Amino acid sequence: MTAPALAAAMARVAGDLESELAALLPPEDGDRLAAAMRYAVLGGGKRLRGFLVLEGGRLFGTGRAACLRTAAAVELLHAYSLIHDDLPAMDDASLRRGRPACHRAFDEATALLAGDALQALAFEVLARGEGPPAPAVRLRLLRELAAAAGAAGMCGGQMRDLLAEGRSLDEAAILDLQARKTGALIRFSCRAGALLADAGEEAVAALDRYGARLGLAFQISDDLLDREGATRETGKDVGRDDAAGKATLVALLGEEGARRRLSALYEEACEALAGLPGDAILLRELFQFVIDRRM
Amino acid sequence: MTAPALAAAMARVAGDLESELAALLPPEDGDRLAAAMRYAVLGGGKRLRGFLVLEGGRLFGTGRAACLRTAAAVELLHAYSLIHDDLPAMDDASLRRGRPACHRAFDEATALLAGDALQALAFEVLARGEGPPAPAVRLRLLRELAAAAGAAGMCGGQMRDLLAEGRSLDEAAILDLQARKTGALIRFSCRAGALLADAGEEAVAALDRYGARLGLAFQISDDLLDREGATRETGKDVGRDDAAGKATLVALLGEEGARRRLSALYEEACEALAGLPGDAILLRELFQFVIDRRM
Repeated sequence: MTAPALAAAMARVAGDLESELAALLPPEDGDRLAAAMRYAVLGGGKRLRGFLVLEGGRLFGTGRAACLRTAAAVELLHAYSLIHDDLPAMDDASLRRGRPACHRAFDEATALLAGDALQALAFEVLARGEGPPAPAVRLRLLRELAAAAGAAGMCGGQMRDLLAEGRSLDEAAILDLQARKTGALIRFSCRAGALLADAGEEAVAALDRYGARLGLAFQISDDLLDREGATRETGKDVGRDDAAGKATLVALLGEEGARRRLSALYEEACEALAGLPGDAILLRELFQFVIDRRM
Repeated sequence: MTAPALAAAMARVAGDLESELAALLPPEDGDRLAAAMRYAVLGGGKRLRGFLVLEGGRLFGTGRAACLRTAAAVELLHAYSLIHDDLPAMDDASLRRGRPACHRAFDEATALLAGDALQALAFEVLARGEGPPAPAVRLRLLRELAAAAGAAGMCGGQMRDLLAEGRSLDEAAILDLQARKTGALIRFSCRAGALLADAGEEAVAALDRYGARLGLAFQISDDLLDREGATRETGKDVGRDDAAGKATLVALLGEEGARRRLSALYEEACEALAGLPGDAILLRELFQFVIDRRM
């Protein structure tokens, strides 16, 4: 169960982000590439990452327009990574958010190019436009987002994930893989609120600690869901990771151990939030939601 | 024949860029993704785009370090586009610069990720580091580079190219395709010199006019080479475009007509350069080199 205030706040962000993204994406106009980009980005997803940017920004009183722009950049980057991860050469997934994956709805070449163009667009929207944030802040956002996306982040994590198929990894290796593959972008989304407000390194570090734990909790919940879930709930193929012999923390710790780890991560996340200004109740509730609902 | 001064200048830039790129790329250290990125970027290529950035910058007295950084970003982006273009779902090319294409030397998933990570790195290096150019100039470079890379530029051009297979396009459609697929990044490379120097819109526009013509001349020369060339000269598969039934300006105008067009483009390019400060002789010679050598 999502707490009512969290549900309302997430729905509002999802709605605002849908409009923002629809305006930032190229118009369809019979253009196949634009159609594939819009198909992959619009009409779905809880916009967890975008919500983190906006909620972090709200704690520091950052203007909503600048937050929305950064949140949109994160969601564009996330959407590109899903398109490429689903490709036959990678995870070969047929479903995404309950619909055919982009390369099934279009074709492989179009999906590949749509992902490439979405990555470029993510950086373009951060660099574009007038007004806040200040140029130096924008450059830091760009630098950190690019680092989260690249070889030290998402791409490096996906590479490690592919190499791990059929091998047994120890806990340190699994944590490293997760921190890159899904953790880096979630951490960036959390940090962004403080970066946008130019709120100082202490605030960035506190949100970073929260984000690191949220990212790991998200992955553990996802792995639990993958073992138990049903297609109708997640809208994607389930049991795939087990079938591919992928190493997960759940396989290593067992389900009980994984749930204990989630509780410990929640406590640490709340500690990190305690020092922030404003009321971080929604970020605490979001963490609980990720654990309970296995979002 | 390359004029001696041009050859020396290009060799110097290629050498400097090789060092810059080697330092910017992640260290290999047994990392498969880093190895694929380094394989695709290092050890080859005339670095035409990088040379354009440095030579444009030199005309305006821009510091070489800032130019090298921007030139490296362009070459990283170019390298990513070649990796993805060569993939089986796209042009399915086995050779690149006389060596196995990245997905042949590694595998498809690794090549896909190496391209993705190189695109992120291109933007990261422009956003990273201290010193000139000023933040506002960096943001403009980032914005223009991202636009040249995305749906309105390179990705959109490649999409149009794939859709054009087996169809006959008219001249306007071929020009639009080329301007996006290869033209946008070459134009950006030319503009960058003036942008880095904050030299004003007139200077940017002059280099833009030169770059637009150079990009088109480059494509026409490439098409001529594709019809006549031999693998040993270009280090890539030849006759591929004809085999794929791709529409080219050479097919439309004939070889004679294409060569006349090259001469006209050269004249227009020289006119564009005439208003620039400093001695643009190397940019004129480079244009001639592209026509004569079919670089």
